[in-house]
Amino acid sequence: MNQDITKELAVTSPEKIVMLVLDGLGGLPDLNTGKTELETAHIPNLDAIAARGICGLSDPIAPGITPGSGPGHLALFGYDPIVNEIGRGALEATGMDVELKEGDVAARGNFCTVDDKGIITDRRAGRISSEKSAGLCKLLDGMKIGGVDIKIYPVREHRFGAVFSGKDLQTDLTESDPSQTGKAPLEIKALNPKAKLTADIINQFIAKAKDILKSHHPANMILLRGFARKPQLKTMQEIYKLNPLAIAVYPMYRGLARLVGMKIAPTGTTLEDEFKTLKENYNQYDFFFLHIKWTDTAGEDGDFARKVKILEQADKALPVLLELKPDVLVVTGDHSTPAAFGGHSWHPVPVVISAKYCRTDAVKEFSENAFLAGGLGRISAKDIMTLAMANARKLTKYGA
Amino acid sequence: MNQDITKELAVTSPEKIVMLVLDGLGGLPDLNTGKTELETAHIPNLDAIAARGICGLSDPIAPGITPGSGPGHLALFGYDPIVNEIGRGALEATGMDVELKEGDVAARGNFCTVDDKGIITDRRAGRISSEKSAGLCKLLDGMKIGGVDIKIYPVREHRFGAVFSGKDLQTDLTESDPSQTGKAPLEIKALNPKAKLTADIINQFIAKAKDILKSHHPANMILLRGFARKPQLKTMQEIYKLNPLAIAVYPMYRGLARLVGMKIAPTGTTLEDEFKTLKENYNQYDFFFLHIKWTDTAGEDGDFARKVKILEQADKALPVLLELKPDVLVVTGDHSTPAAFGGHSWHPVPVVISAKYCRTDAVKEFSENAFLAGGLGRISAKDIMTLAMANARKLTKYGA
Repeated sequence: MNQDITKELAVTSPEKIVMLVLDGLGGLPDLNTGKTELETAHIPNLDAIAARGICGLSDPIAPGITPGSGPGHLALFGYDPIVNEIGRGALEATGMDVELKEGDVAARGNFCTVDDKGIITDRRAGRISSEKSAGLCKLLDGMKIGGVDIKIYPVREHRFGAVFSGKDLQTDLTESDPSQTGKAPLEIKALNPKAKLTADIINQFIAKAKDILKSHHPANMILLRGFARKPQLKTMQEIYKLNPLAIAVYPMYRGLARLVGMKIAPTGTTLEDEFKTLKENYNQYDFFFLHIKWTDTAGEDGDFARKVKILEQADKALPVLLELKPDVLVVTGDHSTPAAFGGHSWHPVPVVISAKYCRTDAVKEFSENAFLAGGLGRISAKDIMTLAMANARKLTKYGA
Repeated sequence: MNQDITKELAVTSPEKIVMLVLDGLGGLPDLNTGKTELETAHIPNLDAIAARGICGLSDPIAPGITPGSGPGHLALFGYDPIVNEIGRGALEATGMDVELKEGDVAARGNFCTVDDKGIITDRRAGRISSEKSAGLCKLLDGMKIGGVDIKIYPVREHRFGAVFSGKDLQTDLTESDPSQTGKAPLEIKALNPKAKLTADIINQFIAKAKDILKSHHPANMILLRGFARKPQLKTMQEIYKLNPLAIAVYPMYRGLARLVGMKIAPTGTTLEDEFKTLKENYNQYDFFFLHIKWTDTAGEDGDFARKVKILEQADKALPVLLELKPDVLVVTGDHSTPAAFGGHSWHPVPVVISAKYCRTDAVKEFSENAFLAGGLGRISAKDIMTLAMANARKLTKYGA
């Protein structure tokens, strides 16, 4: 609903918005020091942004709900992550930079091990190496069955993605993965009559794959699940009348940005490269999504010190961005990944919006605790984009 | 909607949750001292919980809405109290420990006074004593009309409850209470054709009751309203995969807990008894609802000093609970009942969640004002349960 209103009110303006997403930004106190990663890190540039801006904490989905990267980012882009679900197969494709066309059906795949009676003995084929897996994907890639083109691409270890392209393909299908060993892979069944043809084709593909893989123990069979189409999302151009650019090192985030219509900038492999890419493209766009992954990775690894270091590294790189003097600067995360917790968590995420008319508060420090006293209070992440648009004077009045 | 997501994400875990509900917890300042009940009471254990936990204020229904006990508790159990309405008749039955079966229709009843023309002269029959009322209920109890069993049970003074058990009973009925004196009781009418038979049976019952009561002036007639079935609520087992136990001295709260699937522990009549019951049952369950009534009663009576005393009594009993070291401890109320106001009120209710990963804030004192600076901010009461579940590591990630 928030986007229905925004869409009606959005206008173009010369103002530029930069949304800097530090993945997994929020943290928890270290047991020894009692300070969070943000409270520990020396981050003078982020502190200065907090001092200039309006601060708060945001819930990506809802209080208590731990988000995956997909819904976490959709919320930041202003899309209600509960209404706009991304199917598992589509997210896997998105994550591997595979662009789904309208009508394509994507699935998540596993190589698995079956015994001579066809019973699954290992659902992950002994977690074969990514190299081995890539070779096997090549064997299965490029088939055409009943007019349907089948593309297979490696993901990691035993995991791969499958994309079926053809006419009238459906996603109302059961999965072939019985989710346990000691059973044979299940036949894919149509959950409605229209999906019968799709089920037949996928079953034929699985049979052929079994035949091709039979001499490749332990990866002598495949399992498919999470059949999904590219989600039908309105683009950011349609909703916000923005001309948006995404800068992200990891394919998953480029993919998510692409789903909402962003252009993708080629960039390097470091966060410094990403800031440089921002500078180089600054004149051609009016919205920039700059994604920094490694705060999350360090949090996931439970590495408090590394998360602190990456925060400091990002802070040091910030002047390149600040010199561009964006009219609206948003700094936030897609969810918290506290090192003490070692994974994505439900804790609200720090968010700051710095802009000419932002109504600055008294917060001077970029941290979870300091932001409790911020002028934004506790908000829903999907409202951040509306606030950014308002601060960029890109939203007209609602009603007369 | 929050529960749809929670249901998908819920998993069992060894962690235990204790939800301590101090009924009518929130207050208002005493006019002389300027301090609320919580600010006046000496409550070191509650203060310590606030210091360890994450604090905030919650709206049971919505800002400005004063909740009854039913919706107040449904919200605490994570049920949207606006979507999940409990009919008056059903709540009355619940409150008297009367267990409604599927298909039963319950109603609230009043004894009233009618003159010799059948015109109501007193809708409450001079507020006859509960003893007198109980005797009259016995006269009306146990009829069978058209295959429908009719149970009548006393509530308090002129109030009673009626439960109709039979086939195809409906609740789309008008009420017999004209809500004013000087009129005759109304005939019960069916609001749709399917309810015609139910209306007939209830009208026959009222006629018989009138006949039975004619020599019992001032209680010589009855009025019925609030026809309702047992609400169809998913259980906490279904939604949260919890094994929940309720500990409550008053039947209303046991009844509410039963409606959401909780087991009910027999307990004594004091709050100390209730804490003892918690300890005795601690190994057998993973969720505990412990309800303390007397904070509300004192507030309703406008007795500031007594409310303070009961807060202190509860605080003193707390160590029995604290020694159990629950993984997640929630302390809150179902609504505010400020003694200065003398009744349930709309003021947000203090809430604290204490758990390993709760992201403690700087709050050190258990009070309405101190909690304003808390890390939870201002939340909706129905989100408390989601947060408790997250802190107990009983919720998996939403999306990938």
